[in-house]
Amino acid sequence: MSHASLAGLLDRAELLWPERLAVVDGEQRWTYREFAAVVRTRAAGIAAARVGVGDRIAALCDNHAEFLALHFATARLGAILVPINTRLSPHEVADILALAGPRLVIADDEHRGLVAGPVLAPGEPGASMPSPADDALPSPALRAEQPAQIYFTSGTTGRPKGVVLTHGNVLAHAVSTIAELALDERDVWAHVAPMFHLADAWASFAITAVGGRHVFQRRFAAAACLELLERERVTVTNLVPTMLNRLVHEPGAADRDWSAFRVLLSGGAPIAPQTVRRIRETFRCRYVQTYGMTETSPYLTMSIPLARHDALDADARLSIAARTGRPVLGIELRVVDELGRAVPRDDRSVGEIVVRGPTVTPGYWDDPIATAAAFTHDGFLRTGDLATQDADGSVRIVDRKKDVIKSGGETVFSTEVEHRLYEHDAVLEAAVYGRPDPDLGERVVAAVVLKPNHHASEAELIAHCRATLAGFKTPKSIGFVDALPRTGTGKISKRLLRDS
Amino acid sequence: MSHASLAGLLDRAELLWPERLAVVDGEQRWTYREFAAVVRTRAAGIAAARVGVGDRIAALCDNHAEFLALHFATARLGAILVPINTRLSPHEVADILALAGPRLVIADDEHRGLVAGPVLAPGEPGASMPSPADDALPSPALRAEQPAQIYFTSGTTGRPKGVVLTHGNVLAHAVSTIAELALDERDVWAHVAPMFHLADAWASFAITAVGGRHVFQRRFAAAACLELLERERVTVTNLVPTMLNRLVHEPGAADRDWSAFRVLLSGGAPIAPQTVRRIRETFRCRYVQTYGMTETSPYLTMSIPLARHDALDADARLSIAARTGRPVLGIELRVVDELGRAVPRDDRSVGEIVVRGPTVTPGYWDDPIATAAAFTHDGFLRTGDLATQDADGSVRIVDRKKDVIKSGGETVFSTEVEHRLYEHDAVLEAAVYGRPDPDLGERVVAAVVLKPNHHASEAELIAHCRATLAGFKTPKSIGFVDALPRTGTGKISKRLLRDS
Repeated sequence: MSHASLAGLLDRAELLWPERLAVVDGEQRWTYREFAAVVRTRAAGIAAARVGVGDRIAALCDNHAEFLALHFATARLGAILVPINTRLSPHEVADILALAGPRLVIADDEHRGLVAGPVLAPGEPGASMPSPADDALPSPALRAEQPAQIYFTSGTTGRPKGVVLTHGNVLAHAVSTIAELALDERDVWAHVAPMFHLADAWASFAITAVGGRHVFQRRFAAAACLELLERERVTVTNLVPTMLNRLVHEPGAADRDWSAFRVLLSGGAPIAPQTVRRIRETFRCRYVQTYGMTETSPYLTMSIPLARHDALDADARLSIAARTGRPVLGIELRVVDELGRAVPRDDRSVGEIVVRGPTVTPGYWDDPIATAAAFTHDGFLRTGDLATQDADGSVRIVDRKKDVIKSGGETVFSTEVEHRLYEHDAVLEAAVYGRPDPDLGERVVAAVVLKPNHHASEAELIAHCRATLAGFKTPKSIGFVDALPRTGTGKISKRLLRDS
Repeated sequence: MSHASLAGLLDRAELLWPERLAVVDGEQRWTYREFAAVVRTRAAGIAAARVGVGDRIAALCDNHAEFLALHFATARLGAILVPINTRLSPHEVADILALAGPRLVIADDEHRGLVAGPVLAPGEPGASMPSPADDALPSPALRAEQPAQIYFTSGTTGRPKGVVLTHGNVLAHAVSTIAELALDERDVWAHVAPMFHLADAWASFAITAVGGRHVFQRRFAAAACLELLERERVTVTNLVPTMLNRLVHEPGAADRDWSAFRVLLSGGAPIAPQTVRRIRETFRCRYVQTYGMTETSPYLTMSIPLARHDALDADARLSIAARTGRPVLGIELRVVDELGRAVPRDDRSVGEIVVRGPTVTPGYWDDPIATAAAFTHDGFLRTGDLATQDADGSVRIVDRKKDVIKSGGETVFSTEVEHRLYEHDAVLEAAVYGRPDPDLGERVVAAVVLKPNHHASEAELIAHCRATLAGFKTPKSIGFVDALPRTGTGKISKRLLRDS
């Protein structure tokens, strides 16, 4: 069997870049030598609590250096990190803890209240011990298939599902992403999106692997985020569209020094081309749209142009950048109909995205039924996302399978309607979903957040949609809200909208 | 379990770069669409011979497009490719075939004589069939641990050992190398070193994965190689030091148009800094020294400088480029003493290189004893190579463990003595080894090939060595030969020298 350990990425970084600044978190500044020493100390402390290969350690943490260290300390021991969404209720946290059965729970002070039992602070394990020499710690031979992390999905009804990611999964993802984005030791990554979610957490490994630098914002706040990105000369980060939307609307956002910024990733939700344009005008850097899911470590596609796209004009390149993107290195991606046949690559035929590859989860924790249901007979994971694919191999998500609206015998993809709403100047955010309807089965409705100091009536927005959309796609009613309901990871929750 | 299929790399290339020229082999020119169609045809033909997952297919081929296609056709079916060194004797080939038990043997016309039983020509499988649609071929769900290839080691006494490489191994190697070398669709790779060996074969996958182009030289010849590299505007290739030595001594080598050449890799044997200088002067491109072994897919280290080395002068950068190099992405590398403790990183303390990572073989085909002996208790593969490591994490091989000479109670690393010989202007190639000696145990002797039109006497070369080496390291005798004995992969065989 092959062995693969995520902890080895830090060992290599310490070997190659011992004096390089690895971590900047407020007053805390660690070189790679110091970072590795902290990790060894935490690992020794955790091992002293009789935690070993396969034992779970739950964490409820904001973004900070000690949470980063915890990723490597658990990996070093072969323990399994269970990062938990800090926005869940105590009841939801209890459900996850019951399923994960962790030997230790580590939580920030402000999240202790979410946990009924005893917890340790992130910096507590090993704090009373001297940092051990590398040789004094166990260095278990971990198979690539050894679980490294379990991410429990929230926001669905019923029992949470724990997505298992192996050392092999996470390592393969780090290396593929390094190759796709040409990450290297000069890169500085801002942990702004929650580290308890993979949209950010993958970078804990990839950035360490190349000897780059980690900087942190404990929790997202727009003005402070701009301040951090500029001050620390951040070169790359991944933000969810809601955050980007807020950043580009901050006063003076475009006037800062963005000369260090190299590439801005966004993912977790579709994004409108006009938002992409605004992002590029603000930060004057490459924009890469990503698509993925926890089950795939997470990236499946990126909207990186191919060499032949250099010849296209700016508008065409913008629309490529705003697409869901093309499969990343190592991923086998197909868009298939209900019989598993590839749909035509005409960017009109819709099918489900199914994927195979080294970054794909082996399945759900202690849940063979959910695991079996997630895969096709030939080993492809069903993503539940509907998309088209163009002749360039680039996919465009049209909807979550479960968010498709069936209205009067017609199929409505909610994102198409949302894109029209986003084109209206007054719309900050929009969510389109189906409401039960006695005549139509479902009727199309929308919830909208207006931009500050902008106004639009329901009738005006409906007319705006009707101008370019078929009648059956046009929302029958639009509700104005101050904020859209979100899952813990910041995605708009259509389930909560439907249930409200 | 995670699934990983090498065949998926070609599927993705066909998706993203259907019209891009993938293969140029004499008159044969395939786009990625055509390349994928050829592979499907071969796979269908092979499947028709009732070859399926886990079945072996042996190949005795020179470098050509159909051999490349065979790598992907076997991967597609989950069959295991067994590339065999075409320089072996019929007896040695028979030994390998007996161990591998292939269902099919595929051989070029000129190598049919090496095989006792029936063989197919490389282009024969499926040649009489129409190219099947992708959906019409099996696409088995392959686990990452599924063997993709077996490389049998030759040149050792006793039973050959079959190094098993899995789909996961080869895929991880391709992606790591793409990241390290920034390979992309504009790259053109020359298959010049034998494709039956990993020093070249890894690129079959990595170059396809990025949509690059493959060009071929059936067998190495210096003048024709220069011609090919220039004409096809090759950007990257990997040559063994002997080939490089011959290329840079070809008349007019430096006068050609090398503007496309981006990076030249060398591996398979240590190289002298003055050869590196000559290579850089000839090809005016980056030079990267690599080190690896079949068991590790193959690369373990590359002599790629770090950002901080930019500040060094040209000589210091040259000596970094000529070193064995630093561990590549994903590899855990340690240099350890006989008790498994890391040796000091002072570039003087010698230890054995041990490695762990996703590119490391799970073991030897049907040989649990050899497999168990190859690994440490914590899952590190023992390379059998002795090296020092400097404070930068860069290793420098000093010798194969089995080539170390014990003379009069002193340890002599053969490569140190060889480096001195290479510094002499008349020396083209040198090999230093031990001869049994009644007084000393072993005495240091050398075999030398002189450059054309150069002369040096035995006494002169011995005096040259003595000027800078301790007496016990200086060769006691030097034999002049027309060529050094080599293994099938082009490495100098010290075993054959010792036995001669």
